[in-house]
Amino acid sequence: MSTSSIGKLFVVTNFGESHGPAIGCVIDGCPPGMELASEDIQKELDRRRPGSSRFVTQRKESDAVEILSGIYEGKTTGTPIALLIRNENQRSRDYGEVAHQFRPAHADWGYWAKFGLRDPRGGGRASARLTAPTVAAGAVARKWLAEELGISIRARLARLGSVEVRLEDWAEVDRNPFFAANASQIPELESLLESVRKAGDSIGAELVVEAHGVPAGLGNPVYHRLDAALAYALMGLNAVKSVEIGDGASVAAQRGSENGDEMTQEGFLTNHAGGVLGGISSSAPILIRVAVKPTPSVLIPRKSLNEQGEEVLVSTKGRHDPCVGLRAAPILEALVALTLMDAALLQRAQCGNYGLVFDAQEI
Amino acid sequence: MSTSSIGKLFVVTNFGESHGPAIGCVIDGCPPGMELASEDIQKELDRRRPGSSRFVTQRKESDAVEILSGIYEGKTTGTPIALLIRNENQRSRDYGEVAHQFRPAHADWGYWAKFGLRDPRGGGRASARLTAPTVAAGAVARKWLAEELGISIRARLARLGSVEVRLEDWAEVDRNPFFAANASQIPELESLLESVRKAGDSIGAELVVEAHGVPAGLGNPVYHRLDAALAYALMGLNAVKSVEIGDGASVAAQRGSENGDEMTQEGFLTNHAGGVLGGISSSAPILIRVAVKPTPSVLIPRKSLNEQGEEVLVSTKGRHDPCVGLRAAPILEALVALTLMDAALLQRAQCGNYGLVFDAQEI
Amino acid sequence: MSTSSIGKLFVVTNFGESHGPAIGCVIDGCPPGMELASEDIQKELDRRRPGSSRFVTQRKESDAVEILSGIYEGKTTGTPIALLIRNENQRSRDYGEVAHQFRPAHADWGYWAKFGLRDPRGGGRASARLTAPTVAAGAVARKWLAEELGISIRARLARLGSVEVRLEDWAEVDRNPFFAANASQIPELESLLESVRKAGDSIGAELVVEAHGVPAGLGNPVYHRLDAALAYALMGLNAVKSVEIGDGASVAAQRGSENGDEMTQEGFLTNHAGGVLGGISSSAPILIRVAVKPTPSVLIPRKSLNEQGEEVLVSTKGRHDPCVGLRAAPILEALVALTLMDAALLQRAQCGNYGLVFDAQEI
Amino acid sequence: MSTSSIGKLFVVTNFGESHGPAIGCVIDGCPPGMELASEDIQKELDRRRPGSSRFVTQRKESDAVEILSGIYEGKTTGTPIALLIRNENQRSRDYGEVAHQFRPAHADWGYWAKFGLRDPRGGGRASARLTAPTVAAGAVARKWLAEELGISIRARLARLGSVEVRLEDWAEVDRNPFFAANASQIPELESLLESVRKAGDSIGAELVVEAHGVPAGLGNPVYHRLDAALAYALMGLNAVKSVEIGDGASVAAQRGSENGDEMTQEGFLTNHAGGVLGGISSSAPILIRVAVKPTPSVLIPRKSLNEQGEEVLVSTKGRHDPCVGLRAAPILEALVALTLMDAALLQRAQCGNYGLVFDAQEI
Repeated sequence: MSTSSIGKLFVVTNFGESHGPAIGCVIDGCPPGMELASEDIQKELDRRRPGSSRFVTQRKESDAVEILSGIYEGKTTGTPIALLIRNENQRSRDYGEVAHQFRPAHADWGYWAKFGLRDPRGGGRASARLTAPTVAAGAVARKWLAEELGISIRARLARLGSVEVRLEDWAEVDRNPFFAANASQIPELESLLESVRKAGDSIGAELVVEAHGVPAGLGNPVYHRLDAALAYALMGLNAVKSVEIGDGASVAAQRGSENGDEMTQEGFLTNHAGGVLGGISSSAPILIRVAVKPTPSVLIPRKSLNEQGEEVLVSTKGRHDPCVGLRAAPILEALVALTLMDAALLQRAQCGNYGLVFDAQEI
Repeated sequence: MSTSSIGKLFVVTNFGESHGPAIGCVIDGCPPGMELASEDIQKELDRRRPGSSRFVTQRKESDAVEILSGIYEGKTTGTPIALLIRNENQRSRDYGEVAHQFRPAHADWGYWAKFGLRDPRGGGRASARLTAPTVAAGAVARKWLAEELGISIRARLARLGSVEVRLEDWAEVDRNPFFAANASQIPELESLLESVRKAGDSIGAELVVEAHGVPAGLGNPVYHRLDAALAYALMGLNAVKSVEIGDGASVAAQRGSENGDEMTQEGFLTNHAGGVLGGISSSAPILIRVAVKPTPSVLIPRKSLNEQGEEVLVSTKGRHDPCVGLRAAPILEALVALTLMDAALLQRAQCGNYGLVFDAQEI
Repeated sequence: MSTSSIGKLFVVTNFGESHGPAIGCVIDGCPPGMELASEDIQKELDRRRPGSSRFVTQRKESDAVEILSGIYEGKTTGTPIALLIRNENQRSRDYGEVAHQFRPAHADWGYWAKFGLRDPRGGGRASARLTAPTVAAGAVARKWLAEELGISIRARLARLGSVEVRLEDWAEVDRNPFFAANASQIPELESLLESVRKAGDSIGAELVVEAHGVPAGLGNPVYHRLDAALAYALMGLNAVKSVEIGDGASVAAQRGSENGDEMTQEGFLTNHAGGVLGGISSSAPILIRVAVKPTPSVLIPRKSLNEQGEEVLVSTKGRHDPCVGLRAAPILEALVALTLMDAALLQRAQCGNYGLVFDAQEI
Repeated sequence: MSTSSIGKLFVVTNFGESHGPAIGCVIDGCPPGMELASEDIQKELDRRRPGSSRFVTQRKESDAVEILSGIYEGKTTGTPIALLIRNENQRSRDYGEVAHQFRPAHADWGYWAKFGLRDPRGGGRASARLTAPTVAAGAVARKWLAEELGISIRARLARLGSVEVRLEDWAEVDRNPFFAANASQIPELESLLESVRKAGDSIGAELVVEAHGVPAGLGNPVYHRLDAALAYALMGLNAVKSVEIGDGASVAAQRGSENGDEMTQEGFLTNHAGGVLGGISSSAPILIRVAVKPTPSVLIPRKSLNEQGEEVLVSTKGRHDPCVGLRAAPILEALVALTLMDAALLQRAQCGNYGLVFDAQEI
């Protein structure tokens, strides 16, 4: 029950700080016999990596992953897979002046209240850098899910500030630095981000993450429901303030006759539920929307306190993303993969199968 | 790691089905020495109980709780507290005709896909009735939180269908069957519900739940963050499709200079964050909004399948709430109480304290 | 991770006190579709029940179990199985005089030190009565193990005080109140117990528990080894002070050339290991020996303290077993069943199978 | 609930294989603010390290530990402490010939049955080398236990084969390579080991481990008892086949009037219980005895099977300890430290204190 672990059977334990020697994770419970090479993991890390465009932090990290254990002759052995990523580019001097201040909307104050001390270098453990081990572990899970169950997971930027990013073509997502599923809005997004950056400000975003090919039967009736586990994983990501499944908040304004997805022999006629009914997957695509708050690090001076309780003005000068949502897509995919993998193993444990595939057209 | 349990240290294990002999829960890890009588629990159960107005299911249940263990001479002993609620009013005949059909938007299909069989009587374990043990356990948690830490928790209906329910006076919440924090809109809500009921339809809702007096320091940096644990608890409640912390989904459209809550010696100037920063409580009020889908049980016939895969038309004739959101307030409060209690004990375990109280005016 | 639960996937949560309203447990994670009736559980409870001979406590309890949930039409549904046993015969007056004293070798002092208060009625939660829910849950596990994997589990008395109880015929175990696997020593055991009882004293015992038909592959390499899990379960039973696997303590005097069990195509030639190698089952029979201390409740006055720290003389007048080991056999079987069931589900989760059966003659 | 983790609150997750790139662990839940340097950990690792005498494996490993996270300015931050030990001296060629055979009494067969494949290099994950991360984590726990609670833990060799190793002076333990608490028997032990080594054989051992200064109140009533948790930890150590608390197996032959430890204002008069009553620490010293089987790696040819099921003769030529018990003392100490630390944090969580110290003379 480590508080730094996620999963009950496919258990990922995360460690590290932004400017410590290394970050990484240990994966326990991976099924044996799956082919796994560091490239399988590295390719996902590279999708998340900073420095890939001028709109994300310019910190340069190769994020090269080393597999320390759990692999023999190219296959998983069923023993813990430890993954190590060395920190290379720790410009601690950037953070010196705020080491004893609580930057507004940052984790500084909470850590200090909780632990009585904190590692201020680069945000310490609160840094978005700690999502890299999550992505690395997620790469293992999604490989297994794809090979064993044919599950695919994808995410895209759905909103940048007040601009809705239209879904035009999923194939575009990996062709631009915004994970936008269209090419036509890229100039508009660039222009918006440039204005935000020049203003020394930051901006929020929304993302959509989907899982296709999930069999019906994953999840549990009470408490450890699949939607609960998904919400746990996604709300646990830095900056996420909202998690919606299927129609999400808009269900409040719906009638039951509209919201209830009818089933026919061709499949569900709609997917208002977003693939989860009664806490259990329905075999319809799992559809989730999350909102990500704007990066709290802004150049505009803000009122706060320091550790002595004195009022100070804080402006953050370090390297930061103007929009943390821009790099969130691979992380969301990883978190969904970890959650589904765990649910699939729980199902296999209790029921000896993966549930049922409802062979319907996807909606 | 029971999938029917919630909490790591204050662990509640839920059991029962709607029309089985009984429902209940076992609470492990309760601090010893707290005065606890069945009335403390009963009063919360009575707030949740069906049959209290014509707009909720007319099933009559006294929901009388019996404490089976863990209390001696009126005090908690530190050993498991088992709570038992007998089912009294099981009109199984109501459900006979849909026993082998999958009611749209219900848990029927998922349970069948998962387990290969299901208890169809009254929805079995998927019934909202299973929230009663959660409310009972929550009553224990909120008593401890109030006495030990001065924490108070409250919830209210914030939207019914397209009608926003205004916050006028929290004291009104317990004076009407809608948990609405105003008296003036009650006729409007009654009228809306009546029309929904007459149409044989149902309607969604939004609720707000808040916790006040939470010290700064509860929660954890990565994965087991306080917002993650809250989202897990609340998204795990029947019919909830959206969980938002603080400004929730609207952060997507905000700038960092607007979203970041400034701190002064008088406290936080705003509370966009909803009381959680970096996964850890900030001492500002915890503010959460959830959306609840309309009850899937409607009289209007809907297309579905039966267990043989044949297409059928389903309309639900049993006793049902036209809006499950109407009775959700006490349940949301209970789930927040359970989550905060667990976080407080985790904090006491690791750090020997409850964090810091930031003695500011509430926002 | 309730501290009153055992198991990671087949999770049993125990509740109750000797003289409270009821005792029982909740089983989470049981595979669905298994036929289960209360008689399946009752027959194991009856084997454990007090009052079956003059050598065990004369407390009369029917120990009638009620299944509260998790069964529909005679089959497990995969949802929590709650089992309830009402306490009937609580002669609390027997214990009044020691309510504020710490009986030597009892749990009294520890509970008081831990919780700051305790339920003294009949030993409260420290009573051997709390093993009944364990036996009940174990009955479910052993049924599944027998049907799914052909595993059988049996236990016998192996020593009573200084008398070694010879293994002559396993069939005798259920024909005498001592769980002795021979008929010839019964008069000797009766005579010994009678002398102990007349002296107002009590006596220790040793028991052997075995599991046959366990496939190779259950358990884990580091920490959660099968032998570790077995030791956890058995050392967690009241009065047990020693757990030995296979040759146990006598391995200290062995050479490697003697201790190592050779394998041939006909099977293992010996079973010094007791069926566990490297933390994982080997498919040879699992052999365990436990030692049980004499009941601490004796008529002979003993020095102790009361809650005020004053020295007192304590002699226990209530109804007690002169040898708790006499009724331990069904409990040990249950604990082994719970452990193996959990290991089998963990194996199925990670590897999709139950390991390998090494089709050898049993040793 | 990783199966490679130990502890509920002070959670240690172990990873690595004997001949992989590295071994190590992640510690979650460490209290913040404790001074911790790598030397604190290294000194315990050095006590366990191979190559320190001619009677232990001649594999040369510096076992240099690197702290990867969780420390800032010399203090624990409360975030996960990741510890890394690189493998340096992997002579994989030693093991090539047994790569597809099941060495008798080794973990080979079980791993193969479980996972369907195995890493045969140096025993892979079954190697005693994997105890190094346990010792490293234990060093953190024992530092905290000593500083916060004044608890001290020590272990010694109590038997080598048929030779009982007398307790004469605890101070001798760190002055000889056998962890023997006397100087006079060293020549005898050397001579015995030399004869075993020359015979190409190995030999078993017994060790005693003790904890002093443990307050009364650690542990739990049912299942997660302190003795259960200790047995879990110690039986989970490679080669351990027996765990006894206090008088252990000899309680079987005792009477209650003898076994029950009397309490006076000067303390317990005896300590038959070994410091645990009713699953909870009594404040008397915790006394545990374990038996360790002889190393299965012997030069004497032994019958076994290979992966094809063919009968083969196996003799192990690699570098091995003739007695794994010789280096077990620091590991046992570490495991007891981890268990007590976890119990202390659980107690602090539930009860807000560490129980009571019974200020008596040690027995």
